[in-house]
Amino acid sequence: MLQSKLFYKTQKTARHDAGASGGEKTAVSHELLVRAGFVDQLMAGVYTFLPLGFMVLKKIENIIRKNMLEVGGQEMLMPALNPKENWQKTGRWETLDILFKLRGAGDREYALAPTHEEVVSPLAKKIILSYKDLPFYIFHIQDKFRNELRAKSGILRTREFVMKDLYSFHATQEDLDNYYVKVAKVYKNIFKVAGLGKQTFETLASGGTFSKYSHEYQTITDAGEDTIFICKKCGFSINEEIADKKNKCPNCGITEYEQKKAIEVGNIFKLGTKYSLPFGLKYKDKSGKEMDVYMGCYGIGLSRLMGAIVEINHDDNGIIWPKEVAPFSVHLIPVEESVKVKRTAEKICKDLSGIEVLYDDRKDKTTGEKFAEADLIGIPYRVVVSEKTLARGCVEVKERGKKQLKAVKIKQLPKIFNFQ
Amino acid sequence: MLQSKLFYKTQKTARHDAGASGGEKTAVSHELLVRAGFVDQLMAGVYTFLPLGFMVLKKIENIIRKNMLEVGGQEMLMPALNPKENWQKTGRWETLDILFKLRGAGDREYALAPTHEEVVSPLAKKIILSYKDLPFYIFHIQDKFRNELRAKSGILRTREFVMKDLYSFHATQEDLDNYYVKVAKVYKNIFKVAGLGKQTFETLASGGTFSKYSHEYQTITDAGEDTIFICKKCGFSINEEIADKKNKCPNCGITEYEQKKAIEVGNIFKLGTKYSLPFGLKYKDKSGKEMDVYMGCYGIGLSRLMGAIVEINHDDNGIIWPKEVAPFSVHLIPVEESVKVKRTAEKICKDLSGIEVLYDDRKDKTTGEKFAEADLIGIPYRVVVSEKTLARGCVEVKERGKKQLKAVKIKQLPKIFNFQ
Repeated sequence: MLQSKLFYKTQKTARHDAGASGGEKTAVSHELLVRAGFVDQLMAGVYTFLPLGFMVLKKIENIIRKNMLEVGGQEMLMPALNPKENWQKTGRWETLDILFKLRGAGDREYALAPTHEEVVSPLAKKIILSYKDLPFYIFHIQDKFRNELRAKSGILRTREFVMKDLYSFHATQEDLDNYYVKVAKVYKNIFKVAGLGKQTFETLASGGTFSKYSHEYQTITDAGEDTIFICKKCGFSINEEIADKKNKCPNCGITEYEQKKAIEVGNIFKLGTKYSLPFGLKYKDKSGKEMDVYMGCYGIGLSRLMGAIVEINHDDNGIIWPKEVAPFSVHLIPVEESVKVKRTAEKICKDLSGIEVLYDDRKDKTTGEKFAEADLIGIPYRVVVSEKTLARGCVEVKERGKKQLKAVKIKQLPKIFNFQ
Repeated sequence: MLQSKLFYKTQKTARHDAGASGGEKTAVSHELLVRAGFVDQLMAGVYTFLPLGFMVLKKIENIIRKNMLEVGGQEMLMPALNPKENWQKTGRWETLDILFKLRGAGDREYALAPTHEEVVSPLAKKIILSYKDLPFYIFHIQDKFRNELRAKSGILRTREFVMKDLYSFHATQEDLDNYYVKVAKVYKNIFKVAGLGKQTFETLASGGTFSKYSHEYQTITDAGEDTIFICKKCGFSINEEIADKKNKCPNCGITEYEQKKAIEVGNIFKLGTKYSLPFGLKYKDKSGKEMDVYMGCYGIGLSRLMGAIVEINHDDNGIIWPKEVAPFSVHLIPVEESVKVKRTAEKICKDLSGIEVLYDDRKDKTTGEKFAEADLIGIPYRVVVSEKTLARGCVEVKERGKKQLKAVKIKQLPKIFNFQ
């Protein structure tokens, strides 16, 4: 893509996060994503994903989708606009403080769904008749709404956000337990592929009414609002809410923990019969007896994940996108305006077909400005074409986040970037 | 995919559209899409797209996306939650009766966007500085909300729906005019590929304050709420709102029209400076003078398009999906339970890799039930494997909507279905 055509504008400084209060530090991810032109803040807690940000969001979406299909998930799309009655049935119309409520034609009241148990449970009831219909797994990737008292930390905590939520339905607790383990496994894979593997801990958390524990995927960052304890010996991790630092690590038995700030990028939860009961979600077993259905739910906030990736992967000059989620793989920058340099750059673009290249064709920027912007945007490989390198039949390749400059023969380029 | 695993349930009769009043006829698309398990009505005007429906929606999305990229559109994602102030600036906070309004934390008021001029115009203002930044074209595919007084006709008129909206920004009226023609061309292509080519008319409609005319894409169906006049000689089409049947056809000069009920599946609109003015959206021309930006907007409702496709493509037995938007290409049905039939069916599934096959592996359905359901769901090719056909090394292929049964050698199958 030609950079001169890309709908974005980088900024020297980002406007303060409209959700953060005066003295508060703005999250690094907000600062960088706004400055580099990935997102635009419409108001406190509400963002537009500009083309660069949308590309990253789509990459994240595809990583998640692939892993959901791997655990048998079927994709669908449930609506955000929900009938009040469904939320009254579970009691959450009154108790869930972040629930957006609105009134429509005929004075009818709606909720804007912050999660979809109130839709998916009665839906499943229409389709599940007998044990033969179980288990099944459905997910969707769509906009969620939360009436946060204070939306801050950029895209880490917003009032509208893209989320993947998977719901599983089982005949027995044991079947739910087994599936839960499977999902936990692909979750770890998702965070690894998205570039958060080392910093993300599967953390024991409260399980609510129907299960002793749930698991959160917590990424270590000072921008996080949670506190977790990590066992110094084995890495076992517990949310502060349920941790007792005097206790032994449930995994290895020692009592030395590290305390860390973290952000929850995903969670998995055994709902048991919590939502089956109010909606009368039952199945007939082999003997014809009516039994309650067991449910699990498994969420990942895509936009928050994007923010967390930036919190972890950046330096003073800008973002350092992990390859799998980068908007482009290669940032191609010609540094002189000679015909030879231009032609070579255009030929490289053509030869790298299949590899996503952002080509800095702008004529009103100095080389220094182009380099600074490339660092800010954070595409994995910067390729510089100049008279000097061309004299040796080479271009200069630099990996974002590394200092080393490599002279690479032009013919070798497709091989180097063929990493996906 | 195995049909036994698919999350859906067909029904003999669909529940009456909750949005339609007692005596009113339910739209055929509602009836068929609900009965065949493509959508589920959560409440009046609000639907879940079940896996089958989601597959169709994704196909439609990809057709539209491809055509948007062809006219230089850059994809992004704007939020549904909008600040009241932006809608006050254009006056639509007060005048737009279908605008959903809600209140959040701190008594802050929001609109749920039914369209995005109020977001895209101030956004463009942050990025457009000079004539060098123009023209550009941005689009998104996302959920829209409309507080319809009466939501009816199934997914043809809903309170929440998926829409593609493209916005174009130009330095001059002439540039807008030229781009408008380009978009009109790809719009025709979209409706053609989606299987509505013959029944969809580019219809002259009112242009509002800033343009004499706009164009609507109207699909002829009795389920439609619009009335259009089509010139009997040349096919030129005009919306009733601006038509005068006594006048000559603007295209060919005759005065014989056919009057038809139709549904608007898309529209293109020259906004001119209607939204640039309230948001102060200007650019500096070559001489440094500030000039107003000209805008165009171009919408297609994806879920409505899906409904319109069904209105046009069905028979008494069910849906007849056009190949390009069908959830699967092949419906594979073994009719006896012999090992040989089963093995052959499984081998066909494997050999057709790359072609989307729904494999009816269910054992608790009769052949008659399976065939009736296949007709209802409407996958383009039905392939039947039986002892009888296998004796001749063949399977039986039937195109949905046609009567002819063809005996086809198993080896020939991949060739036949390789239509995409």
